[in-house]
Amino acid sequence: MSEKVEIISVGNELLIGKTLNTNAQWLSKRITSIGLSVSRIIVVGDLVEEISAVLQETIDRSPHFIIVTGGLGPTFDDKTLEGIAKALNTPLEVDETAFRMVEKKYIAYAEELGREEFKLTSARIKMATIPQGAKPIPNPVGTAPAILIKSGNVVIYALPGVPLEMKGIFEHSLIKDLKDSVGKVIFFEASLFVSHIMESEIAPLIDRVMHDNPYVYIKSHPMGDERKPRIELHLSTTAEDEEVARKRVKRTLMELSEIVKENGGRIQPQKRTN
Amino acid sequence: MSEKVEIISVGNELLIGKTLNTNAQWLSKRITSIGLSVSRIIVVGDLVEEISAVLQETIDRSPHFIIVTGGLGPTFDDKTLEGIAKALNTPLEVDETAFRMVEKKYIAYAEELGREEFKLTSARIKMATIPQGAKPIPNPVGTAPAILIKSGNVVIYALPGVPLEMKGIFEHSLIKDLKDSVGKVIFFEASLFVSHIMESEIAPLIDRVMHDNPYVYIKSHPMGDERKPRIELHLSTTAEDEEVARKRVKRTLMELSEIVKENGGRIQPQKRTN
Repeated sequence: MSEKVEIISVGNELLIGKTLNTNAQWLSKRITSIGLSVSRIIVVGDLVEEISAVLQETIDRSPHFIIVTGGLGPTFDDKTLEGIAKALNTPLEVDETAFRMVEKKYIAYAEELGREEFKLTSARIKMATIPQGAKPIPNPVGTAPAILIKSGNVVIYALPGVPLEMKGIFEHSLIKDLKDSVGKVIFFEASLFVSHIMESEIAPLIDRVMHDNPYVYIKSHPMGDERKPRIELHLSTTAEDEEVARKRVKRTLMELSEIVKENGGRIQPQKRTN
Repeated sequence: MSEKVEIISVGNELLIGKTLNTNAQWLSKRITSIGLSVSRIIVVGDLVEEISAVLQETIDRSPHFIIVTGGLGPTFDDKTLEGIAKALNTPLEVDETAFRMVEKKYIAYAEELGREEFKLTSARIKMATIPQGAKPIPNPVGTAPAILIKSGNVVIYALPGVPLEMKGIFEHSLIKDLKDSVGKVIFFEASLFVSHIMESEIAPLIDRVMHDNPYVYIKSHPMGDERKPRIELHLSTTAEDEEVARKRVKRTLMELSEIVKENGGRIQPQKRTN
């Protein structure tokens, strides 16, 4: 069983459908690829009570890591740190290290823009006001630091919602910790595209192939409908050794191809596009 | 306060980042546009225990509606109905109406494809095997019926995960019930794109404008960074009367424009793209 991660995406824009949650997809793909598994993704609005409640429930499930994205900026509706502080019953305070990170950014911005200085207004100091006990994480792309805070054995990260900043901090600071937490585990996947066989006809075939290949998970994704079926069969496995994973998936793929063809299906040469 | 909806998206493909959750965005946008509000979105994998636990927790929050998508198909990993049955402590059974819906589809497919008949195999009968007390909802696009089931006052819908089928059933069968549940409430939104002013400078201005316009929610979405700021200011409101909502947003937009310009920002003519 691989180390569990839960993702909490904060932002009203996600709940009104204004924004597509590409952050959660990017994180899920990246986390899966390094051998951990995402067990749940939760989207909540910009409300301290909601963020706090969701975080408490998530901590109660004891995943190894919780990654919260969004709500770290300077505006009134950036409520994530307040929500975390409430959930962990700890006060918010201006952190010296975080303050210096933010200050340094504005000194650099002033230089770059040829302005005398940027005052550290309350909106700017807000970005350095973090839950007591949290460790600020530098933001290589934007202004607001990310944070790391622990609750028992659960490690909680809060990252900005701006995709470039979220990705930058993840690659720069989180990935090493996440990788270290798993041994050497890799995730391997491949897809088989079939046609001329209905999903309802493939269902029992998948059962049979999975029974013979218990370490490979096969999931069918219908892309046409039952009348004109085009189905992606997605195979995935995790293993400590890449060669083992690759062979396992390859063998299963071949068995599946055979059985699909025996039952009237055709294999399509098409590659997966995403 | 508008009627609350929670969305549960079921599917391992979402948790490994293979698939982007466009279904949740589409539903959120559509639900918001007719005057209800989405309060939470949860993504879980294809596990009966997980689906059941998430559904129970969601029911405990007493939203008016819960919309579950994904996991209604014929394969072994389509676990949604099993999860719902477990959460509501009710058995699964072949429903006569659902059975006729599925049967009718395969009779039509056989005719269309010039085949003598399609046997109602266990994989196909699975799609008509629904929790006791559930009402099957016809699927105008695909094969698997959707269902409606109540738990106390909470109305639960389960829709297929294939986007075309999900949308078809939503527009065909759900939207009327959802609309009827709210009185006449409409959601109105507009965006203002500004530059030459930092998000940290705009933060206190938004506070001021929102204080004067308590029914309009303003959220800033940075698209550049603090050095080269381009910011979308998204304004939204709900009201019983479209004219009221429109005027309210328009007035707020004008005040916001003025105050941004007074503080050195510039208004961009750009329209929102999504």
